[in-house]
Amino acid sequence: MEYSAIYHDMDKRFCYAIDKDLFVIRVQVKKDDMKEIILHCEDKYIPMERKDTKKTILMKKIATSQFHDYYEAQLQMHLICLRYYFEFTDTQGEKIYYGNYEFYKECITNRDRMFDCPQNLREEEMFEVPDWAANKVVYQIFPARFAASQQVDKEQWYKAPISSMDDLHGDLRGIIEHLDHVQNLGIDVLYMTPIFKSYSSHKYDIIDYYQIDPSFGTTEDLRELVQEAHKRGMKIVMDAVFNHTGREFFAFEDIMEKGEKSKYLDWYYIEKFPLESERGEIPNYKCFGYYGGMPKLNLKNPEVEKFFTDVACYWIKECDIDGWRMDVGDEISHYFWKNFRRAVKAVKKDMLIIGEIWHYAGDFLEGDEWDTVMNYPFYLNMIDLLADEKIHVSQFVQNLGYLKGRLNKKCYPLMWNLIDSHDTARFLHLCNGNKKKQHLAAAFQLLLPGMPMIYYGDEFAMPGANDPDCRRGMYWDEEYQDKEMYEWYKQLLWIRKKHACISEGELIGSITKDEEETIVLIRKNVEETIALIFNCSSNAKNFSEYEGKYNLLRDEPFDGKVEGLDAAVIVL
Amino acid sequence: MEYSAIYHDMDKRFCYAIDKDLFVIRVQVKKDDMKEIILHCEDKYIPMERKDTKKTILMKKIATSQFHDYYEAQLQMHLICLRYYFEFTDTQGEKIYYGNYEFYKECITNRDRMFDCPQNLREEEMFEVPDWAANKVVYQIFPARFAASQQVDKEQWYKAPISSMDDLHGDLRGIIEHLDHVQNLGIDVLYMTPIFKSYSSHKYDIIDYYQIDPSFGTTEDLRELVQEAHKRGMKIVMDAVFNHTGREFFAFEDIMEKGEKSKYLDWYYIEKFPLESERGEIPNYKCFGYYGGMPKLNLKNPEVEKFFTDVACYWIKECDIDGWRMDVGDEISHYFWKNFRRAVKAVKKDMLIIGEIWHYAGDFLEGDEWDTVMNYPFYLNMIDLLADEKIHVSQFVQNLGYLKGRLNKKCYPLMWNLIDSHDTARFLHLCNGNKKKQHLAAAFQLLLPGMPMIYYGDEFAMPGANDPDCRRGMYWDEEYQDKEMYEWYKQLLWIRKKHACISEGELIGSITKDEEETIVLIRKNVEETIALIFNCSSNAKNFSEYEGKYNLLRDEPFDGKVEGLDAAVIVL
Repeated sequence: MEYSAIYHDMDKRFCYAIDKDLFVIRVQVKKDDMKEIILHCEDKYIPMERKDTKKTILMKKIATSQFHDYYEAQLQMHLICLRYYFEFTDTQGEKIYYGNYEFYKECITNRDRMFDCPQNLREEEMFEVPDWAANKVVYQIFPARFAASQQVDKEQWYKAPISSMDDLHGDLRGIIEHLDHVQNLGIDVLYMTPIFKSYSSHKYDIIDYYQIDPSFGTTEDLRELVQEAHKRGMKIVMDAVFNHTGREFFAFEDIMEKGEKSKYLDWYYIEKFPLESERGEIPNYKCFGYYGGMPKLNLKNPEVEKFFTDVACYWIKECDIDGWRMDVGDEISHYFWKNFRRAVKAVKKDMLIIGEIWHYAGDFLEGDEWDTVMNYPFYLNMIDLLADEKIHVSQFVQNLGYLKGRLNKKCYPLMWNLIDSHDTARFLHLCNGNKKKQHLAAAFQLLLPGMPMIYYGDEFAMPGANDPDCRRGMYWDEEYQDKEMYEWYKQLLWIRKKHACISEGELIGSITKDEEETIVLIRKNVEETIALIFNCSSNAKNFSEYEGKYNLLRDEPFDGKVEGLDAAVIVL
Repeated sequence: MEYSAIYHDMDKRFCYAIDKDLFVIRVQVKKDDMKEIILHCEDKYIPMERKDTKKTILMKKIATSQFHDYYEAQLQMHLICLRYYFEFTDTQGEKIYYGNYEFYKECITNRDRMFDCPQNLREEEMFEVPDWAANKVVYQIFPARFAASQQVDKEQWYKAPISSMDDLHGDLRGIIEHLDHVQNLGIDVLYMTPIFKSYSSHKYDIIDYYQIDPSFGTTEDLRELVQEAHKRGMKIVMDAVFNHTGREFFAFEDIMEKGEKSKYLDWYYIEKFPLESERGEIPNYKCFGYYGGMPKLNLKNPEVEKFFTDVACYWIKECDIDGWRMDVGDEISHYFWKNFRRAVKAVKKDMLIIGEIWHYAGDFLEGDEWDTVMNYPFYLNMIDLLADEKIHVSQFVQNLGYLKGRLNKKCYPLMWNLIDSHDTARFLHLCNGNKKKQHLAAAFQLLLPGMPMIYYGDEFAMPGANDPDCRRGMYWDEEYQDKEMYEWYKQLLWIRKKHACISEGELIGSITKDEEETIVLIRKNVEETIALIFNCSSNAKNFSEYEGKYNLLRDEPFDGKVEGLDAAVIVL
């Protein structure tokens, strides 16, 4: 048995409530090392009357990462505090007990040598996510370049932008007018990058958080957009840029004007006066990166904390938006996020809070900060698998397994799976224009659990290298649109919605073959059992064991063959 | 290389600031697996001007637990955000790179594949502990049974108490009158179990948090005690019982009286009316354990949260106490503790916050809740090693290594190392009265880093089985006192204070021999190098390599021999 791989912490990451009286306990062990893991439980404070509280539960393997298996037990309890320990039996038959961070050769009877789960504490800290969000599909819009309600110069519109100042005059009204497109595709959530007043086209350097950028429209337009979306059963998520402001934001302007006498001095991290100009060398005030145009806010200052939390609450009350995506979320303190969550959820209980972070984000996803994150680990693995062909299918599946094993159960179906965004080159670009690869990537994105986030235009196979090229004017004219790609996305979205089993069913089988470059995932819910087949090789492969079953993706019986870089969804 | 044992998380437990611009990064690997670990660092947002920010640091092994080694790098940085990855070379010469939770065969150049350390975030969340506390020695007093200022019935005083209601009339004035004893022993911190109004002798069922129990004295007496202690350079820590109250506390009394109409209904967890009497079966309201006399508080209720945070602040302002020990701390939510810390530290910046928890407590010790804990893992291992003789010396050392490897550097020298307390049988009792074992246990307790907590009377070898027997009247009369034990404690305390190297010196060597049952730890600071020798066998052992050096414990040259169950402190 590999003791050094065994990991359990009795904190809320490995031991948490998912409902009143319902608890999850997880443990990590070395991959393929265990034959059986049993969880032994009892009441910490057993009174004579309750001596029957002892229980054993066979733990279930719920995820596998590259080097670990994750096991889980769910248990019903109504106690002050549970005590528990693990009984491991490895594949060689070796048996060991693990409690209170130490191993024992014999069954543990001393309660001080067990782990603890204080029910009250865990229930108070339960991760509560919006009911509406799990497995819904998101569509990301870059408003300046998505749709313009006014006549625009078409040549200009379809030309690749060359700077972040190029504004194509997209606006909120344009989005409202194109809601049908989004709805027809089958989208549930619309996420817009920032729309507040700013001089850039991306608007990540905001100068007034209480004003919609005039080029985009008015508060009234936003309200209408939200209402129209809600009428269609869609939600609206906005972008919260609270890590930094633009230089022309009133507080920074005051500092530029009054220097050390400014009463807003403590709103930023000023290192030296006089302040350097925006285009100087390395700024002498903290910024996002070293961008002088984006001075970093001091959110530790309670005034600043209040200002931005108020902004977040204001737009919920004013326009009834449904979520905030937190820009550069991982460079802002946990303390801020904890208070932010409380404030925002008090205004609207089912607001969705999504953090931008490019890494595994366990510490932000313990239930008291964000609800979910943009799933960049998914993105990076998708590139490794399909664009760069650097990893095998088994590693792809296992790297996603890491997230499933480590993250809170409540959060996993809310992960924003993406293959590109306004901050990356388009996936198609990274595949050198190989549309079959995008086909397959979209299948992964839209058939796996989570909240897939489709970047506007991907459905028409829009091209685009790194920023700003990935932010071109949306392909509204048919001559630019890739109809086949559009139909593919639409079909994927349609079956995802029609067959809840695809994203919500329990994973009862996973067959990955590295030499074949194929993945088969089998999911089951009360209604049906479905096999998801992904062929990542460029050659057709045979899956004759499913022949004669129904392929939902092609809407026809399955002949056993899946083309190279293609997928199939089989009803078993 | 054992990949499955490698663990690093880029959260603040494994990557944190210890000073402005000074950071610690740690990684866990399988024990004895690595030849070398190199940390590669660079600026996340490298602007052209700073391409020289790349750095490599050889990591240092700082702790070893039963199955792991912990490596650490410290680095000076002044950046927006650091990116880093690890280069592991195992003892077989195999080399692998680890970044962003994935392994790579080649050196990592893509910054998205590295780990992150946002400087600002980590500095904001830096663990700040009171300057005065590290490695100081604590003395625990159970006030009802420590010292009485009035004449008491001696027969009664020295009789073992048989219930928690037996009050021996100890009081604050008695403590004041015996401060010389505490000071002469060499104590820095005096910790008293609760002193607020309550009908029991232990006073863990408080009925008025604003009144000193009349049998103990008055607020004026407490103020005087604190002043007298401060005059002697000692600190006073009090016991905060915020998990539950007594039944006669005004809010619970109101509920008992008015039932569902009480405005304090939400101060507790009432499951059903009418409330059962205290002595009923399992209470129909939540309690500490199932003790009907200790109804559990609902600290989620902001009114309740405020009431108890106010209590904590009141006594600091009123009497200038120096610390709070949080009773049943691990059954109260992290949310409460985070706010509690802010409130208390705002009143007195260098207040010490100690949690009661019987387990490894990493999740409460991340810098924003408690400063330290009662080190029950130390206690349990001390019992295993000496009382029950169940583990070998190497496991003892390694189990303490787990704490050193896992806990924040700032917190480790504040751990309250104990061998017994008011909640356990006396260590001597667990050793069946073998005083040599207590000698040796005290040597471990007082020669290792941390804040040793001596339970009153241990210095006189007082006996005592489980509560309430472990809470006997203090042995003030010479006929009861074990003078040899007292001199031993005094000597240990004296050399600990005189030779900072003992507790603060860097550990430069650790030789544990299971077959010999001996431990030698070598510490070094700028002044000296000292070897701590512990002989855990019952036979004398030879340490002739140190012969002729000076033994601080006996105040004479060392002849190379250490008796069974004895220790030596050698100046090298």
